[in-house]
Amino acid sequence: MSKDALRRRYEELSQWPLVLLALLFVASYAWGVLRPDLPHPLLVTLRVVTVVAWPVFLGDYVLRLALADHRWRFVRQNWVDGLAVLLPLLRPLRVLSLVRVARVLDRRLTTSLHGRVAAYVTLTASLVVFMASLAVYDAERGAPGASITSYGDAVWWALTTITTVGYGDEYPVTGDGRLVAVLLMVSGIALLGVVTAAVASWFVGRVAEAAQAQDDADDAALLVEVRELADEVRRLRAELADRDELGAQPLRTTGSG
Amino acid sequence: MSKDALRRRYEELSQWPLVLLALLFVASYAWGVLRPDLPHPLLVTLRVVTVVAWPVFLGDYVLRLALADHRWRFVRQNWVDGLAVLLPLLRPLRVLSLVRVARVLDRRLTTSLHGRVAAYVTLTASLVVFMASLAVYDAERGAPGASITSYGDAVWWALTTITTVGYGDEYPVTGDGRLVAVLLMVSGIALLGVVTAAVASWFVGRVAEAAQAQDDADDAALLVEVRELADEVRRLRAELADRDELGAQPLRTTGSG
Amino acid sequence: MSKDALRRRYEELSQWPLVLLALLFVASYAWGVLRPDLPHPLLVTLRVVTVVAWPVFLGDYVLRLALADHRWRFVRQNWVDGLAVLLPLLRPLRVLSLVRVARVLDRRLTTSLHGRVAAYVTLTASLVVFMASLAVYDAERGAPGASITSYGDAVWWALTTITTVGYGDEYPVTGDGRLVAVLLMVSGIALLGVVTAAVASWFVGRVAEAAQAQDDADDAALLVEVRELADEVRRLRAELADRDELGAQPLRTTGSG
Amino acid sequence: MSKDALRRRYEELSQWPLVLLALLFVASYAWGVLRPDLPHPLLVTLRVVTVVAWPVFLGDYVLRLALADHRWRFVRQNWVDGLAVLLPLLRPLRVLSLVRVARVLDRRLTTSLHGRVAAYVTLTASLVVFMASLAVYDAERGAPGASITSYGDAVWWALTTITTVGYGDEYPVTGDGRLVAVLLMVSGIALLGVVTAAVASWFVGRVAEAAQAQDDADDAALLVEVRELADEVRRLRAELADRDELGAQPLRTTGSG
Repeated sequence: MSKDALRRRYEELSQWPLVLLALLFVASYAWGVLRPDLPHPLLVTLRVVTVVAWPVFLGDYVLRLALADHRWRFVRQNWVDGLAVLLPLLRPLRVLSLVRVARVLDRRLTTSLHGRVAAYVTLTASLVVFMASLAVYDAERGAPGASITSYGDAVWWALTTITTVGYGDEYPVTGDGRLVAVLLMVSGIALLGVVTAAVASWFVGRVAEAAQAQDDADDAALLVEVRELADEVRRLRAELADRDELGAQPLRTTGSG
Repeated sequence: MSKDALRRRYEELSQWPLVLLALLFVASYAWGVLRPDLPHPLLVTLRVVTVVAWPVFLGDYVLRLALADHRWRFVRQNWVDGLAVLLPLLRPLRVLSLVRVARVLDRRLTTSLHGRVAAYVTLTASLVVFMASLAVYDAERGAPGASITSYGDAVWWALTTITTVGYGDEYPVTGDGRLVAVLLMVSGIALLGVVTAAVASWFVGRVAEAAQAQDDADDAALLVEVRELADEVRRLRAELADRDELGAQPLRTTGSG
Repeated sequence: MSKDALRRRYEELSQWPLVLLALLFVASYAWGVLRPDLPHPLLVTLRVVTVVAWPVFLGDYVLRLALADHRWRFVRQNWVDGLAVLLPLLRPLRVLSLVRVARVLDRRLTTSLHGRVAAYVTLTASLVVFMASLAVYDAERGAPGASITSYGDAVWWALTTITTVGYGDEYPVTGDGRLVAVLLMVSGIALLGVVTAAVASWFVGRVAEAAQAQDDADDAALLVEVRELADEVRRLRAELADRDELGAQPLRTTGSG
Repeated sequence: MSKDALRRRYEELSQWPLVLLALLFVASYAWGVLRPDLPHPLLVTLRVVTVVAWPVFLGDYVLRLALADHRWRFVRQNWVDGLAVLLPLLRPLRVLSLVRVARVLDRRLTTSLHGRVAAYVTLTASLVVFMASLAVYDAERGAPGASITSYGDAVWWALTTITTVGYGDEYPVTGDGRLVAVLLMVSGIALLGVVTAAVASWFVGRVAEAAQAQDDADDAALLVEVRELADEVRRLRAELADRDELGAQPLRTTGSG
């Protein structure tokens, strides 16, 4: 089996276990962050899950990279996975692998490009806001002078940030919190870009449709002319063939006589 | 009558009564929020109108859903109505049904896609800002530590939010107020998207027009060539037919002689 | 002379005097706002200029409206002029008539659509920021609790607003100041829209160029084929004509013999 | 050698020395700003480098301008260099000449327009944020009432500004700091514009591809018809030529007989 086929087979087999692990990771992380008052042994178990998940993800990434035909292209196309593996702070990004699952599911639901984009944007933005809220709440909770002091505050802050509104009633003060904020701001710009682009392409498509219809009409008119011309030539040939029988035939008789 | 035709007939008949009810709902809601010093019986009446309107809207939505041929598509295409029916906080969104009326009216006024988009964007943004100001003012009015303390403040805050400026001199502190804020922020992103997209499609259209003109010229040139060719072939046939009369006829005589 | 020709002639004649008046108006307004410590008679003179300029602009607008063939279209196409005439607060917008002058000048300088758009955007944004700073400074100067207390602050605030950054270190507290702010925010969204759209159309143009080149190549190939075909038919006719001379001529002789 | 060829040759020769000087300039500037506690002689040396670099850049700009065939076009196409030479505050912008080097390098790495744009945007935004943080930190450090008091604060502030989030927890209070801020805000609008435009053109390209495929299919169908027609005409000619040999030849014999 070729290396690329092997990789595709591995990805097929590992997809669902990895998604389950990602869900388990996220659930453990969220539970640990949101309920610090849990009994100690449970907290330790949750922590163990989040710690153990990482080498699995790292192994998966390294294996897929090793099996890739074009390594540089693989790194570029899977940059979210790469970041999630390399930067401990960005590990929650692993949850974005759920978007890939959504891709499989939605093929059965919608077909239009715009519907699919709307679904991805909503899902990705929701996951990013959810995980960023957890991470920033985790980072800011105990910090002196912090304004983000509850999980509700963290979600509210994440939403004001990703929409680039930024009231400034809540903002992170720790280094880790600010790193999460930068990720959210960049996501915000990307979000704006994708929303605008989707609307713009819908518009342009509307305008282009009219132009296209005109173009198609022109092409169709031309096709009609060419076909009429072909008929004309065919009639000409038929007439000549006709004459061969009625008129030219005698010619040959004459000629042979 | 088919189910779909029935639905269309029902929508035609119910459109104006529902728009009137939406207006009544909005007026009662606005009056109740802005003038809490009204005599008690009047306030109760206003409240009754807003409460009674809801089951009517719910019934309308369920009826249209039941009459829809493609239910999933109906839900997707009428998601604003669905949200307004399901989430009590978003009931004021019902006012957006006025945009549908505008759609009927404007068909007589403007024809260009860009003019119509400009009109919808302005109308929708104004309605959203108006209703969001009312809702946030209602939610924040009595809250401790609130910065939005007058209706003027609420409008000002709504405008800084929907444009994603977000000074932070006013911001909601209650859960309901923040939910309204999230709606406004998302509207802001959509607003930016639509405005940008409209301008972009105008631009692209300008550039495409030139390309289209070139394309049309090419097509026209081709058409001219094909027509000339057809004339050539027709002349050829005519000449041959001519010869049949002048030259080939005698041939046959000769042949038969 | 037709009404439309009359209007065009009037607009040609009145353009420069009106631009001069707009400049005078802006200079008087700016001088009066920035130097409230001027001797009283001079301040009164400046105020008289700004007051007197308005009826002239109103008269100009009404006259052009009366001479317009399509009044509704005129109102839509000159909505900035209309707003500047109707709303006292927006009178400084009259300065945007300078953009129209720029349009005349730049025809000699640049020819590309993108260069022209960049020039307009820069000029319009600069004028809007300049006039909005003056207006907001005028409105906020004496207000209790105002944070915009110098002209430098006003310019800084205007820039943070039109770019939708909105730190919130400075913000208007008066009704007039907030109205100016809303104008700036809307301009900000328009600015973002136009900048994005210009960049997007450049991109799309780049991509479309390649497609167009392919399309042109296809059309050219088709044209070549059609021309070769036409040559073929022409050769055919020529050969038949040839035969008429060499072969068919005798036929007729034979026929007549 | 023509003036333009001379300029191109000069630019080739001077590129690498100038990039090295820009790097040296940036390193000296950054080191001087970030470590004001360095021994005095070293600080003086760093300052000398930043001061000496400027006349070199000025000389380079003037020389290239003198050698340019179209001076106005040169000024427009090299406006970043021009600003960096003219405004002392914007000298750090000189670092953007590194982007030009990247242009040379990346030709070997990526080929797609979108990949290249992503790389430029990331590189340019990073350089602008890095230099703006240094400049604003330098300007604000000692100012009374400043909120940007560490380099980390400056980077955080620069990021909230270029993404147009603008919390307002940190903001410049000095004139120089505000000038840097304005540059960042304008960069932010440009950044949003470019990101959105890149995504939009990708979308539009996707939609256009389908239309293009349809168009190509139409063109191909037409080409097939035209070729069939040409074959028809060729067969016609061949048949006539055939008859000339078999049938028409005797005609001439008859005619001559």
